[in-house]
Parts: sequence; structure tokens; C-alpha cells
Amino acid sequence: MTRVVIVGASAAGMTAASKIRRETGNDVEVVVFEASAYTSISACGLPYFASGDVTDSADLIVRTPQEHRANGIDVRTTTKVTAVDLARAQLHTEDGSFDYDKLIVATGATPRRLDIEGIDSVGVLPLHTLDDSHAMLSALRAEPRNVVIVGSGPIGIEMAEACVTRSISATIVDHHDEPFGLIEPELGVQLRFQLEKQDIRFQGGSGVRRIHADDGRVSSVELEDGTVLAADLVVWAVGVEATSQLLAHHGVELGPAGGIVVDDHMRVTKDVWAAGDCVAVTDLQTGELAHIPLGTHANKQGMVAGASVVAELSGEESPLKFPGVVRTAIARFGQFEIARTGLGTEQALRAGLDVVSASIETTTRAGYFPGAEPMTVWMLAERGTRRVRGVQIVGCESAGLRIDAAATVITAQLTVDDVIMLDLAYAPPFASVWSPIQVAARAVAARI
Amino acid sequence: MTRVVIVGASAAGMTAASKIRRETGNDVEVVVFEASAYTSISACGLPYFASGDVTDSADLIVRTPQEHRANGIDVRTTTKVTAVDLARAQLHTEDGSFDYDKLIVATGATPRRLDIEGIDSVGVLPLHTLDDSHAMLSALRAEPRNVVIVGSGPIGIEMAEACVTRSISATIVDHHDEPFGLIEPELGVQLRFQLEKQDIRFQGGSGVRRIHADDGRVSSVELEDGTVLAADLVVWAVGVEATSQLLAHHGVELGPAGGIVVDDHMRVTKDVWAAGDCVAVTDLQTGELAHIPLGTHANKQGMVAGASVVAELSGEESPLKFPGVVRTAIARFGQFEIARTGLGTEQALRAGLDVVSASIETTTRAGYFPGAEPMTVWMLAERGTRRVRGVQIVGCESAGLRIDAAATVITAQLTVDDVIMLDLAYAPPFASVWSPIQVAARAVAARI
Repeated sequence: MTRVVIVGASAAGMTAASKIRRETGNDVEVVVFEASAYTSISACGLPYFASGDVTDSADLIVRTPQEHRANGIDVRTTTKVTAVDLARAQLHTEDGSFDYDKLIVATGATPRRLDIEGIDSVGVLPLHTLDDSHAMLSALRAEPRNVVIVGSGPIGIEMAEACVTRSISATIVDHHDEPFGLIEPELGVQLRFQLEKQDIRFQGGSGVRRIHADDGRVSSVELEDGTVLAADLVVWAVGVEATSQLLAHHGVELGPAGGIVVDDHMRVTKDVWAAGDCVAVTDLQTGELAHIPLGTHANKQGMVAGASVVAELSGEESPLKFPGVVRTAIARFGQFEIARTGLGTEQALRAGLDVVSASIETTTRAGYFPGAEPMTVWMLAERGTRRVRGVQIVGCESAGLRIDAAATVITAQLTVDDVIMLDLAYAPPFASVWSPIQVAARAVAARI
Repeated sequence: MTRVVIVGASAAGMTAASKIRRETGNDVEVVVFEASAYTSISACGLPYFASGDVTDSADLIVRTPQEHRANGIDVRTTTKVTAVDLARAQLHTEDGSFDYDKLIVATGATPRRLDIEGIDSVGVLPLHTLDDSHAMLSALRAEPRNVVIVGSGPIGIEMAEACVTRSISATIVDHHDEPFGLIEPELGVQLRFQLEKQDIRFQGGSGVRRIHADDGRVSSVELEDGTVLAADLVVWAVGVEATSQLLAHHGVELGPAGGIVVDDHMRVTKDVWAAGDCVAVTDLQTGELAHIPLGTHANKQGMVAGASVVAELSGEESPLKFPGVVRTAIARFGQFEIARTGLGTEQALRAGLDVVSASIETTTRAGYFPGAEPMTVWMLAERGTRRVRGVQIVGCESAGLRIDAAATVITAQLTVDDVIMLDLAYAPPFASVWSPIQVAARAVAARI
């Protein structure tokens, strides 16, 4: 009997577990340890449960522990793995020790905790687990008068939308000058206008210095620039760090934000793999390691890790590899969409690239077509190779979905000239005759 | 003084004219002959003027003859070029003959006229020119009781939508078994359901045998299978043929539907170029010639032809080339979108490719997200190379826009395995965590 043990029952862990279960026989045991009571949660949906858009949290559970068990996976929830002994191939839980033959670490990530005064006050809430989202929902239902959202990434923006929906006044705080630091400030400005239109204040350029509390309950947030914002609810959305403690003390290499470094089969070391929010990923353009915890990566990595274990058990090499990422991200605030892929200006300069960028305004439909809405496309290209290096889009009505073609362009290493000649779709209800990313490519080509 | 003459003032011709005017000096004269009274019409918008969605036909004119003249282009409207003498570098118009140094033929296309009885009856209307769209608008405003639309391509579908908007009863007739022959029948079925839901009947599998008229006015349409459909308005939308007569008798090679064969600089022969709906294009995957009259191609080709003439005048080689197409197309019926790119099953088999296809159902948003709508993605891949060869998408709410990523995938010659690992955008309001084209790629990969 061979025993495969997986630590963590979220997207990466359960994708790996399911693949191994499906593709191996009765001589392989698949055991999953999970610290929480849940499995296979759609983590990206949590803000939409907290906001009330998704009304039943059960909808966010793709598969329950019972369903996984019925599929032959030995899922052990509410069981925290406290340590691993790589030399002995053994895990330790609160209940005792446990041997494994192959191990997949899929322990996810944890909200970044800054070491500031008052962070533990009642009313300072992260949004990372299903339990968090229940707490957030209750907090919002209690009709707070002053919500301060710390961080303006996807979760910060989604929670701002939740406040708008519930007519709750909110302020977003961020150390970036404009919201959504993953995009260029010139596009961030547009998001800020959208926030302000919906009475969400944005207080940029300053981080949080301390949180003041009254009787242990948050009363205000003090910024590094001295501003004090009254607050009866603080949404803590400053990003996450890899939960890589299990492997951290075993000579395992860790990348940015503690992400476990793996090869393209998601292997860490002999008999150990890792996948999901706890790993580092490679930027396909620069070769740099990064920590980009997204469900899309977690699902692919879980599949790749599972395939690698299956192949190893039968003495073969797995054909599946996780090649890396191009930093694609998308978010929505009301009807306003924000999407990005590839490198931003700062990232490109840091990678030593000689780049040119341009930003164009166009419409989501032909200009004469009813309902045409403005959209902005920003494109970055490398001077010498003329390759497209980054694309960012903001605007309404499916503006964001166009980022997928740009992500493909960057992955395929196409040039601005290639983009101009791409045979992209056009009809008046969908675009102008030159697709928005082609208009941007023409603008960048003209500048090169 | 060098004289560049362009025949045809639609997208290709005026794009070329404008580029040459901008990039050459006073020693170059740019003359455009146009048979109609208009320049730079957004031809793809005509159905939406006929439908009433676009209320002012002036909105469909990107630039008037006066505006072009103000830019230094000598536009001569309502002047039909009747013949060209390539040996003497001379054009003939009804007003006399006219010398040129460089010639660009951008004469567009003409609705395909089948040689059937009754085709000239009053009430049988094509939709190709601005005048046609005014006539169509009048005909629809006259509240016809029985509209028969012949052809279920983009224009047929768009006119069906126009009928729905005006609560006019309509039947679409097509020799294909299912509507929109550019997509696989299994997706066409879904479009048929959408048509039927809106009380548009679809009568497939039979072409038109003759048109019956009463006092010269259409009264019914008789199909090849004997069916007779009452009709007081017949929308004639069976496609177009290249208007290549000017060059047809000069040993110039013509491709499918009479499309003028050009090189990748859009050159026909010494001192003669052609661009737009009158030319043949190369399918990037098969190398075959095809006639695919679309505004997207016309704009690019006009730019390439213009650049080639500019380069020739200064004795250089133009860096701009029109590489060919991957047969991308998109259309909409109400909220239902239809998009395709690459090869269909029949096209692939004709090209001798060993292909595998799969079709998957998914949703436009995460399954648990409010407003998630079904969409279907069909994908075709080549067995040996594993390259994606064709993608088709039908569904609501921006389903169609996803075709751009697929067109890029095909152009860049990516495999199904590459697609599965693409870093595409995901957030619950936009997709499931595996993007629809990745779900399709996984299904095809499993079948290979």
C-alpha cells in the first residue's frame, strides 16, 4: 500500500487529490489533512458572500468532505498538521504522527499581518476564510457607520462595492497614490473617479500607523501621515503571505512572500510537492520568482502536482508542467472593470527592459452604436524586440475580458506588429473595427 | 507630379488614401474615384441603421467627401470607373480617361445575385449600401406582414433581430440545415432555438427556387423543396462577390468569389495594388485562398497597400505586410452571441488535417454567481501536432468576445496543452476558474 498525503483541502490540494484518486488503483491511499472544517472552497467568491450577492455560502463549496470521501479520498478535516519530518517521511498532527510515501503541501496563504498597534481589536476583519466571510457579513449587516478598507487590491475593491450595495459609507486606505496598485497610476485615477462617484473615498499615499480602540473595539484608524479616520469596521485587505511554515525549516528554498520554490512539475524535493497559494511562481517574461496567489494558478498547479505524483508512482515522467505566469488579474467595481497582464512600467524597468508605453481611449462598441462606453487600454512594448510586454484595460461592459487575448499575445511572445495584424472579432455591438488592443498596439508602434 | 489613383472610397480605399496623403509631400497627388455619393461608410453598421438602433445614417459616415478634401485628398464621388488600361496606366470614367502612376483598386463587393425567376421584383432588397439601408428602413416601417430573410449569415441574423425589435413576423431561409453556416451545426441548433424563442422561424436545408410576384411586387418565395412562403418583403442576404471586373480581363488572377489575388504587400502587378472586399485573402492555417469580406481586413489591407505605395514612391520596401486571416467572425442575435475562428470540421478535413473536436458547456460567470448564463465552446485540434485549429462560441453576455484569445492562440500556433496553461483572467463575475476555452482545450486534449 502506497500512501499519498496532501496537506490542505482547498483548490490546489483537492484538485491534486482527485486526480491521484482517479488515476491510481486500490493500492494507493489518498489522505488529505485540513485544519478547517471545509474542503474545496471557491475562495474568490468569499467577497461576494460577504456582500450578499451570493446568498448561500454552501454555493461556494464545490465539494464537501462527505462528497470527497464518497470518491475514495480520506479527508480529515479540523486536523492541523503541526510539523513534517522529511527525513522520516512523517507528519505530525495534534493527534499523533503519520507516515507518508508522497507528500503534497497545499497549505495556501494567510492574510498579511502588519505588526501595528491595535490590529487585534474587535472589528478589524480579514477576508480569507469562509468563517471570515460569515463574520464580515454579520459586521456589514450591523450597519457600521464608518468602514475603513485597508488595501485597494481586488478584495478591497470588491468590499467597497459591497459597501455601496448596502449604502454604507467607506474609505479605502492604501500606501499607493492611486487605487489598485497592480495597474499604472494613470489608470488607477479612473478607478478612483469611479469609487468617488459611488461615495467611496480613497485616501492614498499613506499606510496605517496604528488602530485605536475603545474598550477593545476599533474606534479609528491612524495613518502614517497623521490622518485619523473614524472606524467601526476595518476591512483588512493588504494581501497575503504563503503559509509555508511546514517546510520553512527544512532547507527548502522560499521565494517572495514565503512562497515555496518548486520545479515545473511542482516538485519541492524527493517525495515532496507543493501547489497553490503556498508556492512561488515564475514570471514567464523575466524569469523572476513571484508570489501570486490566484485560484487559476492553484487549480493548474494542483493538476500538475497530482499528475507528477501519479507519474512517479508508475515510474514515468509526467507530461504536465506548470510553465509560469504573466501576472494576469481582473477585478470589478460595480460595472467598472479593471484588468491587467504582463509587466507594469516599474516591473519592466526593474527587469532591465527598454520599454515604450502608450495609452488610448476607445469605446466598448462601435462609436455610433447605442450603449458604447469609454474604455482605456494601456500597452507596454520592448523597443528592440518590439514584443508586447504588458497590457492594462479599464472600462465598462466586458472591457476586462479583452485581457485574455493580451495575455495570450504576451505568452506567445508576439510583437506590436503581430498584434496589429491579428484577425480579431469585429461587429458594431462588440468593438470598433480596430480592436482596442490593436489601437493600443498602433499607438505604441508609432512611439517605438 | 506623381498621381496615385484609388478606385473606391470605402474603408480600404480611404484608409490607403489617407495614409498616402499623410506620408507624402506636395509632389504626390491623391485622387479617389467613387461611384456612389458617399465616402468612408461603416458598412457593418448598415443593418443597425435599417433596424433603427442607429437613428442617424450620418453617424455611419466616418468622414465625408468634404472632410477628405479638406485633408488634401481629391475625392470624386458619383464617378464610376468603367475600365482600366494597365498597359497605358489609364482609367476610363464616363467623363473620359485619366492617367495614373500608381493605382489602388478598392472596389469592394456586390451582393451575390442568383439567377432565379422573380429576383428583380419590387420588395426584394439587398443590404449592402447606405441607399439599401434607407430602402430597408422604409420597407420595415411600412410594417410588412411576412418577411422572408434569405441567408442566415451575420446580416440575415441582424435583420432577424431588427424584425423582432419591430414585432414583425419573419422566416429565415437557408440551404444549410442549421442557421449561421459559419459555425458547426451543433452550435447552429442553439442559435435556431434562440430564433424560435423570438418567433423567428428557420427553414433550413433548402435554397430558393423562385420568387413569385403580383403586379411586379413580391408575393411569395418558393423553395427548392416545394415549400411556398408568403412574403411582402424579402431580405436578400446570401453573401457577396468581389467587385473585381475592372481587373478581371487583364490576366490578373482571381480567387474564390472573384477575389483579386495579391501579395502580402497587397500588390497585384506593377504599379497596381488592391485592398478590401475585392481581394482574396490567405488562410494562415491552410494557405488556401478565400474571400472573406470584412471591415477588419479592409482597414488593415488599406493601411498595408497605402504603406506599400508610399514605400515604392521613395524606392524603399514597406515593412507592413498583411499576413492573412484565421476566419474570425462574430455576430449577435439579441443577447445571444455567436463567434468563431479558425477552421470548422469540414474545412479541416478538406485541408487533409487529422482533427479531433469537443464541445463543452460552461457559464459566463462562476456557476454560483448571480446572472451566470450558459455558454458553449467548441474546439478543434490536430491530432499529431496537438495545435488548436478552430474555436467556436455561442452564448450570452460577452461569450463572443472570448473568441479573440482563441484567434490569438491559432495565429500563434499554440497547442491544446499551451492553452490549458495560459494565464487567463478570472474573477467570479467574469468566468469559472478554468476559462471556457481552457475547459474546451482540456476536453479536446482528453480525446486526442
